[in-house]
Amino acid sequence: MRAVDVIRAKRDGGEMSADQIRAFVSAAASGGWPDYQLSALLMAIFLKGMTATETATLTRAMADSGKVLDLSDLPGVKVDKHSTGGIGDKVSLVLAPLAAACGVTVPMMSGRGLGHTGGTLDKLEAIPGFRTNLTEAELRAALRDVGCGMIGQSADVAPADKKLYALRDVTGTVESIPLITASILSKKIAEGISALVMDVKCGRGAFMKTLPEAKALAESIQQVGTENGLTVRTLITDMDTPLGRNVGHSLEVIEAIETLKGNGPDDLTELCVKQAVLMVELAGIADPAATVRQALRHGAALGKFRQMVEQQGGDPWVVDDYAQLPTAPHRTVIPAPTDGFVADVDPYSVGIAVAHLGGGRKTAADRIDLGVGVVINKKRGEAVKAGETVFEVHHGDTGVREAMDLLTYCFRVSDTPPSVNPLILEELK
Amino acid sequence: MRAVDVIRAKRDGGEMSADQIRAFVSAAASGGWPDYQLSALLMAIFLKGMTATETATLTRAMADSGKVLDLSDLPGVKVDKHSTGGIGDKVSLVLAPLAAACGVTVPMMSGRGLGHTGGTLDKLEAIPGFRTNLTEAELRAALRDVGCGMIGQSADVAPADKKLYALRDVTGTVESIPLITASILSKKIAEGISALVMDVKCGRGAFMKTLPEAKALAESIQQVGTENGLTVRTLITDMDTPLGRNVGHSLEVIEAIETLKGNGPDDLTELCVKQAVLMVELAGIADPAATVRQALRHGAALGKFRQMVEQQGGDPWVVDDYAQLPTAPHRTVIPAPTDGFVADVDPYSVGIAVAHLGGGRKTAADRIDLGVGVVINKKRGEAVKAGETVFEVHHGDTGVREAMDLLTYCFRVSDTPPSVNPLILEELK
Repeated sequence: MRAVDVIRAKRDGGEMSADQIRAFVSAAASGGWPDYQLSALLMAIFLKGMTATETATLTRAMADSGKVLDLSDLPGVKVDKHSTGGIGDKVSLVLAPLAAACGVTVPMMSGRGLGHTGGTLDKLEAIPGFRTNLTEAELRAALRDVGCGMIGQSADVAPADKKLYALRDVTGTVESIPLITASILSKKIAEGISALVMDVKCGRGAFMKTLPEAKALAESIQQVGTENGLTVRTLITDMDTPLGRNVGHSLEVIEAIETLKGNGPDDLTELCVKQAVLMVELAGIADPAATVRQALRHGAALGKFRQMVEQQGGDPWVVDDYAQLPTAPHRTVIPAPTDGFVADVDPYSVGIAVAHLGGGRKTAADRIDLGVGVVINKKRGEAVKAGETVFEVHHGDTGVREAMDLLTYCFRVSDTPPSVNPLILEELK
Repeated sequence: MRAVDVIRAKRDGGEMSADQIRAFVSAAASGGWPDYQLSALLMAIFLKGMTATETATLTRAMADSGKVLDLSDLPGVKVDKHSTGGIGDKVSLVLAPLAAACGVTVPMMSGRGLGHTGGTLDKLEAIPGFRTNLTEAELRAALRDVGCGMIGQSADVAPADKKLYALRDVTGTVESIPLITASILSKKIAEGISALVMDVKCGRGAFMKTLPEAKALAESIQQVGTENGLTVRTLITDMDTPLGRNVGHSLEVIEAIETLKGNGPDDLTELCVKQAVLMVELAGIADPAATVRQALRHGAALGKFRQMVEQQGGDPWVVDDYAQLPTAPHRTVIPAPTDGFVADVDPYSVGIAVAHLGGGRKTAADRIDLGVGVVINKKRGEAVKAGETVFEVHHGDTGVREAMDLLTYCFRVSDTPPSVNPLILEELK
């Protein structure tokens, strides 16, 4: 099969055959086609789309391009959760131990931050000693002994995805629903789960800016997941304002632990509980809502977090002593200019501000500062008096001016309370 | 300027700015962008198109990516001709000396064959000793002393085009009107001409299969040429049957010389005269039709051909002794199965047959056999008796069976004369 013939077929709007898709994926994994042919085909897929059948085949082929874990010897239904990412989204840190405390087996594979969003792996690594590069044996031990394990994508998982993801990033072919679907689900299939809770973020701080875009992605993931034997529950949730109050790596770890202690902000707590209930339901455990409530209320989820930290090489005392986490040397506040209600906080600007402070990567090789961030003292809809702190900025000497400029202009105060979006915009089954 | 931003702009259907286009072209020439970014942008241009303004800027930038000849010190208006290529199209070999004999200065830059079409450079090299790789000084001497010079694209002419052409070939982005336009015209601008006769071939043996496609390309070339200061006359001509009777390198040289002697087939002669008249007209020479007729009738054009051959290192006696040209060892005829009229000769099959015999290249590095080919004894519309020769195949031991199979089935004999397409389908001014 000649690469150029496959490219021409898609270019002309045709449906690729399973053989053509597998040839493409295997070439991506092996280097069998030069990059310029892969990228021409990626652009043709971007512009001409793929049917659900093509996307399902692409997903399976990408999963099969590397190691696919078989966790069937471990007890329990294996359920993971994936979010398309947003500002202040630290749900995974709460959810993995919470679901595990309810009896779900949670092999959770996460990514690193790039651009304006943080990554779960980076947040976990704010905990001194915490290792996310578990071997397969270590992951199995964690799942057996703790019930959850939080890891990165190792080199042998979906290598075709790694190759294509890197190419998409530099060839303007990222925002393609079939390519996003295949990238997300191939890794989930490879980790050996049988069910998935999917959180598609929607709004200015998300990848999908509008509800129709978010729905299109949600439906694609739902359909392609099902065709590949996964049971999927998808939520579309608001990302038009940051989630929770803390943005920045250490700050988000603290907020996640506080949520496990029952002191989390309302929106974050609501979303963690909702997703945990779905995971418990998917695991076939009775009375999911009550089970989750009890696991939170009686400290079981917090205990599971301690256990997970210890299992993965960190010090569980972090739960009681946040001073173990990296902190920024300086704090500067941004006050409200007038009395009123916080009408709007642009999550994208908050994300970029934290990136300027050193908390984000421009390239995958960049080092990040885990201590910097922003605490949102007054969230959207909350009343504020002139001079009261809206943002507390945790910073060093990097990018302070750019961050302060962004943060000063990224919120509005209005006379009347703003209308408030629901947090959960849609639920797909 | 980041490559990915330029790619995204075109991907989303936007018009590229002049700066973006120049950045792309300069990166193609210098290697400043990796191939995978060039090819992603080529696919986006293929699928989203370019406005005439974008195409004009692309063309100029590609011309300026290398050496642009300044021939203003040489006398006369410099006029060239370009054909998009077809089976049996040896017009250039007749036209350059014919127009030069009329007083036009003709710096003619041609290409090599690839796939099923032959290239003018390869045909010229059937003449022993003929050199097409003239230095600039040699070309100037030829234009001054003879009036025409036939050369290949040297490495320093439009290097961005060379790079992009090679990439397009392997990424399914060849058949794009803006990209074809820029590729053709950038090289023409670089050779220092001020006017161009363009022959857009249309039909099964051509790149453009239908009249609407051919018109779209013709109009693009006309418009973009004009925007870059070239006066362009464009013909759309029939390529639904081979041009002339001879296909194959030596055979086409012989037919071209015969045409200069006044013994050429009607269609070839008509097209050469038509194009020569346009070139003479563009050069501002009085009474073009009579001038061309006289140059042919009185042997001036043939004399100019001899002079050109000698100037470029060949033996002008080739005009009188075709035995100097490479020949094939064997001849096999294909007879008509019944009485009637030749109703159809598929030019594409003839081209592929000659390629099978060794007269075509699969890759640019292939060597070709200049002696093989096909003589079309009975052209479309001509009466034939059962058993009379339709094709005389000149061959060695390579690909004979494939070629004979193709040729046997590539023509039809019908009871009544077929309707005949006009040779010149349209003329654009």
